[in-house]
Amino acid sequence: MDNPDGRRVFLDASGSAPMTPRTKEAFLAAIDEGWADPERLHHESRRSQALIDGAREAIAAVLRSPVERTLVVPTFGLAFDRAIAGIAAARRGRTRIVASAIERRPLLRIAHRSSSAVSLVPVDDDGRLDLEAFVQTLSGGDVSLVAVQHTNQEIGVIQRLERIHALATEAHLPLVVDATASIGHIDPPRDWDALVADPCDWGSPRGIAVLAFGAASRWSPVGPVVAGKVNPAVALAAAVALEEREEGRVEASTRMRRLTDRLRHAIHAISGAEVFGDSTISLPHVLSVAFDGVDGEALAAALDREGFAVGSGSACTTEPSPQSHVLAALGTVTLGNLRIGLHPGITDADVDSFVAALRKVLAGELARRPRG
Amino acid sequence: MDNPDGRRVFLDASGSAPMTPRTKEAFLAAIDEGWADPERLHHESRRSQALIDGAREAIAAVLRSPVERTLVVPTFGLAFDRAIAGIAAARRGRTRIVASAIERRPLLRIAHRSSSAVSLVPVDDDGRLDLEAFVQTLSGGDVSLVAVQHTNQEIGVIQRLERIHALATEAHLPLVVDATASIGHIDPPRDWDALVADPCDWGSPRGIAVLAFGAASRWSPVGPVVAGKVNPAVALAAAVALEEREEGRVEASTRMRRLTDRLRHAIHAISGAEVFGDSTISLPHVLSVAFDGVDGEALAAALDREGFAVGSGSACTTEPSPQSHVLAALGTVTLGNLRIGLHPGITDADVDSFVAALRKVLAGELARRPRG
Repeated sequence: MDNPDGRRVFLDASGSAPMTPRTKEAFLAAIDEGWADPERLHHESRRSQALIDGAREAIAAVLRSPVERTLVVPTFGLAFDRAIAGIAAARRGRTRIVASAIERRPLLRIAHRSSSAVSLVPVDDDGRLDLEAFVQTLSGGDVSLVAVQHTNQEIGVIQRLERIHALATEAHLPLVVDATASIGHIDPPRDWDALVADPCDWGSPRGIAVLAFGAASRWSPVGPVVAGKVNPAVALAAAVALEEREEGRVEASTRMRRLTDRLRHAIHAISGAEVFGDSTISLPHVLSVAFDGVDGEALAAALDREGFAVGSGSACTTEPSPQSHVLAALGTVTLGNLRIGLHPGITDADVDSFVAALRKVLAGELARRPRG
Repeated sequence: MDNPDGRRVFLDASGSAPMTPRTKEAFLAAIDEGWADPERLHHESRRSQALIDGAREAIAAVLRSPVERTLVVPTFGLAFDRAIAGIAAARRGRTRIVASAIERRPLLRIAHRSSSAVSLVPVDDDGRLDLEAFVQTLSGGDVSLVAVQHTNQEIGVIQRLERIHALATEAHLPLVVDATASIGHIDPPRDWDALVADPCDWGSPRGIAVLAFGAASRWSPVGPVVAGKVNPAVALAAAVALEEREEGRVEASTRMRRLTDRLRHAIHAISGAEVFGDSTISLPHVLSVAFDGVDGEALAAALDREGFAVGSGSACTTEPSPQSHVLAALGTVTLGNLRIGLHPGITDADVDSFVAALRKVLAGELARRPRG
């Protein structure tokens, strides 16, 4: 541990979270059981396949998706590809994809590749899809599919999928829902034709993503890249982690909502702070904030030295720009934001010590800032 | 274990092998260390990235590839995609790909997607590339790249990469080498411009593939599907497994060569048996055989019930056809072949008991076979 003064506090649990003891135990037990290639014909292979099928069943039960249409692939990029390119390919002649302006960049990249045009639908100040603009962009008869996320991984906003799905269905368009930031945190969405989920986000070891198609969906199963096989032990661990999250979800989300509200108020009281999104329509565990004139990455690095891990920018060092396209879509320009994601192990004391460290670091950052 | 009479014997170690105790120990230790997203800015992330970078370094040392051009991605399909589509995209205006007729299907699929035409170069009876036909197909000025595997995963044949690379270089064409079946078993190839390796084949847990570019190679880094991140613990385990294989490789390959030669002779003596490939130019641990009029899948299933895991057909139940395109390229028509792959844990006694079981099962199969 870098920080000799105390335990590190992990506040970047959006997209990854440490394994719980129960998940880790299941994972370790499955490692011995599920090492063989799941797609061959012998006993060792069937054992691997049984782990994967058990995981698919358990995950489908949570998603309320058809088991035989609930698939696991190694990465969420491959899941987006199968969903977007697969459905687009099954709707030949329709060459435009409609997506919200705050979809994840990997999904937008695949949409651009799978169509000749992508229409981005704007969002309001809280990040909610502009439904009037949405309806307008569906017309023309050239749209193959619609992609709207369940919640945003950066600002936490929850979309009104029931209305969005009804509008898409009325226009005879399938709705692909990116649920990579919501499953395990709030009620799974019910209104979708294809759904992508990211087990890392709920505390699974890395190496798996979930792709589900609705009972009536049509898609072309052959993508450009062979999806490849998941590690069967990872699949089992993903299912166990989800079951555990679901069992404790109502209690944990109530507690995390209280903690993020507390954070929201404490940060709001800091001069120059901007807190994004509206807590009444957001994920319980995610908060995105920026400080006027403060470089988000430098701030995250300083907090890291104090023992606190937080996300910054679009949360990924490989993104082409530190400026978040999500915040840009909200009409906000920042020098980079902090993304805070709580996991169930975070306590009131952690939040308090984080706020104290944030104040201390900001005082230092602001003191160093050149006067304009 | 299904087989109550004795331990199971795993003879399908081509593409997957059980973890050794040393690899498993490294894997378990790394699970606690490397759960965080490697691409963020905090301590937990850097710890994950350090595991991945350590793995890349260790693997690059074995491959003798430039470390900064040795990448890890979650699946070998993604590695093929980055190599083939990435190089093809950097050579705009050239629209044809040249590949051997016995490349793996995922690679061929990506070649077809990344170009307007794929020229397949025939192989001789032993599976070696026809060099005259190869040279002829390189002309025309429209070729973007050449893909020839180091060894074939099904029949084990080793290609003459030194000559093939010299011919490609003479034609100013980059050579992509699929080494997914050779690394850890024989000397790594030195003659390539891009190389793909599959750690599962040398006993790594699933979830990683290796992609290396030569110092002078040019490629476009953006693929259609975001490659995604590998599990850092899997990356470390892959590196440890490879180091262990390399340390014991000369001894293990001598021993396995002896065992496959013994199998080759024993099977050759069975009436109606055909053994593919020439042992003097093949991988030491791989053997592919067929029996006249015997269904390969039924035979593999019967052997499985006797406690022996072997591969069959093109080795994958998701392949579109049980008929192997590799054997078809050798001019052979079978009802399906057996693929035998030894790992270092296999003993003389295992081989002897396998031959006995094979004889027993074949007698049963042949007795049940309708007379033509």
